[in-house]
Amino acid sequence: MTPDPAWRLSLNQATTRPLRLEQVVRCCAEAGLQGIGLWRESVDEAGTQRAARLVRRAGLTVTSLCRGGFLTDATSAGRAAAIEDNRRAIEQAALVGAPVLVLVCGGVPAGSRDLAGARQMVSDGIAELVADAKAHGVRLAIEPLHPMFCADRSVVSTLAQALAMADRFPSALVGVMLDAYHVWWDPDLDDSLAQAGQRLAGFQLSDWVLPLPADTLLGRGHIGDGCIDFRGLDSAMRTAGYDGWTEVEIFNEAVWKAPGRQTLQTVVERYRLHVASPGAP
Amino acid sequence: MTPDPAWRLSLNQATTRPLRLEQVVRCCAEAGLQGIGLWRESVDEAGTQRAARLVRRAGLTVTSLCRGGFLTDATSAGRAAAIEDNRRAIEQAALVGAPVLVLVCGGVPAGSRDLAGARQMVSDGIAELVADAKAHGVRLAIEPLHPMFCADRSVVSTLAQALAMADRFPSALVGVMLDAYHVWWDPDLDDSLAQAGQRLAGFQLSDWVLPLPADTLLGRGHIGDGCIDFRGLDSAMRTAGYDGWTEVEIFNEAVWKAPGRQTLQTVVERYRLHVASPGAP
Repeated sequence: MTPDPAWRLSLNQATTRPLRLEQVVRCCAEAGLQGIGLWRESVDEAGTQRAARLVRRAGLTVTSLCRGGFLTDATSAGRAAAIEDNRRAIEQAALVGAPVLVLVCGGVPAGSRDLAGARQMVSDGIAELVADAKAHGVRLAIEPLHPMFCADRSVVSTLAQALAMADRFPSALVGVMLDAYHVWWDPDLDDSLAQAGQRLAGFQLSDWVLPLPADTLLGRGHIGDGCIDFRGLDSAMRTAGYDGWTEVEIFNEAVWKAPGRQTLQTVVERYRLHVASPGAP
Repeated sequence: MTPDPAWRLSLNQATTRPLRLEQVVRCCAEAGLQGIGLWRESVDEAGTQRAARLVRRAGLTVTSLCRGGFLTDATSAGRAAAIEDNRRAIEQAALVGAPVLVLVCGGVPAGSRDLAGARQMVSDGIAELVADAKAHGVRLAIEPLHPMFCADRSVVSTLAQALAMADRFPSALVGVMLDAYHVWWDPDLDDSLAQAGQRLAGFQLSDWVLPLPADTLLGRGHIGDGCIDFRGLDSAMRTAGYDGWTEVEIFNEAVWKAPGRQTLQTVVERYRLHVASPGAP
């Protein structure tokens, strides 16, 4: 089944992580998908210029590059290294045509109990990057991560918090990435979305399935396998004014073992069943 | 080392789960602890009247009973059974002299994606219980659980949400239990605490340690082993007006394997090091 172009459905490469970029691009083309969210590791492996060509020749739109961030570190040298790494990521995003660089902001530095200090490091780090973002025409997207990742991956845990952090920067340079898996539980989500307006820089989907695996990074399920109300969330995003791409991004060992073609077929089917509104164009 | 009575430090029984109530009571007395948070399973095992005697004869104050709740269910019969179970829990709390019954409110019913509906079930369930709570002189304490438990254990995830849910009931009958492990990541925690006032019905401590174990229920660490700023949180609780007991409640297989006496010694030492303010009476 070919996805409806009106869906603006994009495959985030993490969903097919074992595949090399040329394989992913081919799978997308075969499945009729028109967007792709890239990962730096895969772009590095392919070579940045070659990756850009592969994607362009397949007629795919790059919807985001994952990921920058990890701006928290106990040492100033560590933080400076993170800024340099983010500068390279911004440059790579521009080279592959990604409008958005996703930021996984970083956790509480090892040995620290200073959560507020870590959050300040994130804000300060982004402030150091906005000039680069502007120069390269790339928007930084702060991604709130599920609070179970607060200690080690992101001290930004809610949409409201991401919006507050973005607020000191121009909307064209700093937005937010909304990933359903990370925010579905948030009792303030609807209120925050109503405030988000033009800050919404991206939308990612995977389902909350139980039990969580030993590696909690890899617990995400295909849409429809869990308890997230995607149709409601999608509708709230559209009401909030978001008219961009929707990426399906699934970290899951079982999904990674499935053939790419089968995975993309499931992605499209599930999107149609659980996200796209019935009767939508 | 004997704990300072001014600390009002209490052992939540979950910390020494393998021990029978008489053993726990003996450990508390030996360690000089004056409070205990009980669990229904253990009270049932000992017999409610006998449990009450054991605790009273040891001179211990019962600080809470864990737990009621699980008010969400796909069927009305299931919800009615939950109400009945909570009525028995309220009665038991009164019989053992627990001023507070902790509510783990319940997750999203199996097969459902209706998070708002599940939250309504919790609110409706509590409404059915307040008369019983009043009759027995037991306060219900809504406990926000970490969002990683939203699907299966509690659709109440933040202090602000618990306070909003409690708001329709008299403060003497419905309060909130603040467990550091569940709420430490919340960017709104300080603001919510400043609003909490007399709703604060209890305070529980364990540390956030990584990696999370395969069973994410059992990932809690001794105070000081993780990244939670207990001194700051304790100070915020006191500023908010909370002057009640502090329970240490640790779910951890390794802690359960340690001898009870050693565990209590660690509990007291860590509390002194990481929670009690230096120079406090």
